[in-house]
Amino acid sequence: MARPKALSGFPEFLPAQRIVEQAVIDLLRETFELHGFAGIETRAVEPMDALTRKGEITKEVYVVRRLHAAPDEVGDDVGLHFDLTVPLARYVLENSGQLNFPFRRYQIQKVWRGERPQEGRYREFAQADIDIIGEHGLAEHHDVEAPLVMLEALEKLHLRLGLPPVLMHVNNRKLSEGFYRGLGIEDTAAVLQRVDKFDKIGPAAVHELLMDELGLSDQVAAKCVELATIQAPDDSFAARVHDLGVRSEMLDEGIDSLVRVINAARTQVPGRMLADLKIARGLDYYTGTVYETELVGHEPLGSISSGGRYDSLASDGKRSYPGVGISLGLTRLLVPLLGRGALAASRSVPSCVLVAVDAEETRPVAMSVAAALRARGIACEVAPRADRYGKQIRYADRRGIPFVWFGGVQGEVKDIRSGEQVGADASGWQPPAEDLRPGVVTAS
Amino acid sequence: MARPKALSGFPEFLPAQRIVEQAVIDLLRETFELHGFAGIETRAVEPMDALTRKGEITKEVYVVRRLHAAPDEVGDDVGLHFDLTVPLARYVLENSGQLNFPFRRYQIQKVWRGERPQEGRYREFAQADIDIIGEHGLAEHHDVEAPLVMLEALEKLHLRLGLPPVLMHVNNRKLSEGFYRGLGIEDTAAVLQRVDKFDKIGPAAVHELLMDELGLSDQVAAKCVELATIQAPDDSFAARVHDLGVRSEMLDEGIDSLVRVINAARTQVPGRMLADLKIARGLDYYTGTVYETELVGHEPLGSISSGGRYDSLASDGKRSYPGVGISLGLTRLLVPLLGRGALAASRSVPSCVLVAVDAEETRPVAMSVAAALRARGIACEVAPRADRYGKQIRYADRRGIPFVWFGGVQGEVKDIRSGEQVGADASGWQPPAEDLRPGVVTAS
Repeated sequence: MARPKALSGFPEFLPAQRIVEQAVIDLLRETFELHGFAGIETRAVEPMDALTRKGEITKEVYVVRRLHAAPDEVGDDVGLHFDLTVPLARYVLENSGQLNFPFRRYQIQKVWRGERPQEGRYREFAQADIDIIGEHGLAEHHDVEAPLVMLEALEKLHLRLGLPPVLMHVNNRKLSEGFYRGLGIEDTAAVLQRVDKFDKIGPAAVHELLMDELGLSDQVAAKCVELATIQAPDDSFAARVHDLGVRSEMLDEGIDSLVRVINAARTQVPGRMLADLKIARGLDYYTGTVYETELVGHEPLGSISSGGRYDSLASDGKRSYPGVGISLGLTRLLVPLLGRGALAASRSVPSCVLVAVDAEETRPVAMSVAAALRARGIACEVAPRADRYGKQIRYADRRGIPFVWFGGVQGEVKDIRSGEQVGADASGWQPPAEDLRPGVVTAS
Repeated sequence: MARPKALSGFPEFLPAQRIVEQAVIDLLRETFELHGFAGIETRAVEPMDALTRKGEITKEVYVVRRLHAAPDEVGDDVGLHFDLTVPLARYVLENSGQLNFPFRRYQIQKVWRGERPQEGRYREFAQADIDIIGEHGLAEHHDVEAPLVMLEALEKLHLRLGLPPVLMHVNNRKLSEGFYRGLGIEDTAAVLQRVDKFDKIGPAAVHELLMDELGLSDQVAAKCVELATIQAPDDSFAARVHDLGVRSEMLDEGIDSLVRVINAARTQVPGRMLADLKIARGLDYYTGTVYETELVGHEPLGSISSGGRYDSLASDGKRSYPGVGISLGLTRLLVPLLGRGALAASRSVPSCVLVAVDAEETRPVAMSVAAALRARGIACEVAPRADRYGKQIRYADRRGIPFVWFGGVQGEVKDIRSGEQVGADASGWQPPAEDLRPGVVTAS
């Protein structure tokens, strides 16, 4: 076999990079579980009709078929899921009788999209989603809860693993829609669509689109643009909206809801959330709070974590399931940071200790040292060959293993970074806590 | 949407079942890492030519294609991997310059096979593999190491999580092949193929096949069958092979190697390994030690963990990569045990505590209690509605959450199993260790 080339759009990590990804996943899982979210996994495939319901995403679906399927074989009409929301909706309907609502679930899995690969676009990538799903209704305080759980996780990634901090931009669909209605606009979705282009084309161009395409008056279009420019790290945005002189009940509801989110965030994760009234989240099915998140210093990446409130995730005719959720683009976040070396693992293997082997005949001695260390949670491996010690030390060094053990259970252990070698007992010796497991290190 | 039905062959777990699966995965990962195996994940797809190289498996491959691919679109000729060995071979070749050899890796991922679904056969299932890959050569002591690591993991699953114990059946290809050669047989693979049917058709039928299909004499066929009947929990198998009066250098090599494996297992995981000289592992690419593992009391499941030594996992012309590995069929192991209720989780959510809410206005008080508990690693959730307390306790009870908290940080905590309620401070209270996380419980 000739040396294979990487498949474009299907990123893979080297072992040391995977250690970083695993550390990130572990921290996400820990945070989500502390908040009572149950982990699930769903199968990789969904029926094609479920995947193609959302018109605009159709083109990106990967169809899956048995190589030797008969041409008319039925029941195999499936494709790879392109997000974790379609599978969740199906899972909730399929298992509704065995789930307890509100159902709090997290899900960390790969998804697939048949996109043309380009910078920041992947054909296979991992997502980490949390959602809270109600039966019939779902209290509005979950709109506050969901983004705060994700922000708490992102803040831990920053403080504990050294990832860049984030800034979450939050709006509320009711606020925008209520405002437009207060202005007498009926097709509020059309306005949202134009406002969604704010960051790309700028306020003047949005103003023009609103007049040219939707026939809004100069004054009304100006109000819409003014609303979209409002940003605040606190609830002062509310006064600025009021100052625009527009009134509607839905607007007040939206403002109140957003005030609650912003105030809770200011207490719990200060400095990480911004009320940003231009956030629209495209044509999606959101009906209340909406979130987008940028990685500070890496804004061109786009939003690494988005979501919002939806009034109907799924419905089986009798019951409907409203929800609120937020998704983290794990691959989108990590590939650039790992690729640039901004994040790395302190070593490429879990091993904290390499147990040296004197001679093949004494390999069992080395194995008993390793067993004694492992019994106390210290990862180690036994040298594969009884080479001269210098070569065994290089084996450890190349992998970043910090310690080499010589002799038996009563032996000596060398920190190969400092060169210091001391007598030690494998049934009691403990490495420094920071060396026990591979850590995540930052380049800066 | 009507209520969707499960897709045959694509098992999914309910949240409580997933807790068990996750506990199993965590324990596997812990064990593999203690032995210095680095975790990797590979992409779900491989080029079709890599997947169809092994003739007999071709029919089971799932082809993946973009829904809107042009009919002549190239470069997309990929399918879902059906094991983790083909991807490992490709990963090793692709990254050989950046890996250190021997390369010790574990990989826990889903694989896909387009099989007709039936009892114990899945179209999507998870595997947990460990392999040690050398460059040019790989010392024989790794043949001893790989099965012992897996046995240690399986023993922990038994002792800590209550899974049934296992019995690993081990043979060595050199032993069988050397024995057949010692008998003057040239086409040793043909003999192995017939012996591989021993458990299905019995010794008399194998004897007949060897005579009828391969033209072996009655006496030679009898020797082959006698070898296949030898089983021993210790190295006494060696004397029984010698007693058959066949001699060859390769036979001695195989016996010595198997003696080392069996003796090491007897010390480290007593009672879990059996030398079983009929184990052949079909037509596979194994060249040394081979393993199969049955779950005691669930033998009809077939082998839940198999593997062996292969002299060439991959080769790029210049270098070849021998290896030894063993794979655990996670889904194959868990679906029957979870389905029968032999294994279950102690609750369906991670939450140890439900923090009750007095009235919507005091929700922030409950949130501060929850924050205080979480800060000390205690998973909890806040009641979604300020219902009367009886209803809030039922919310906890339905999910198996053991504790309900009333009042503020200085409040009271009720164990809803015993009904006992005591004053407690959320900044210091600690649940019993066994209640902190959901546990795995056995039905028996």
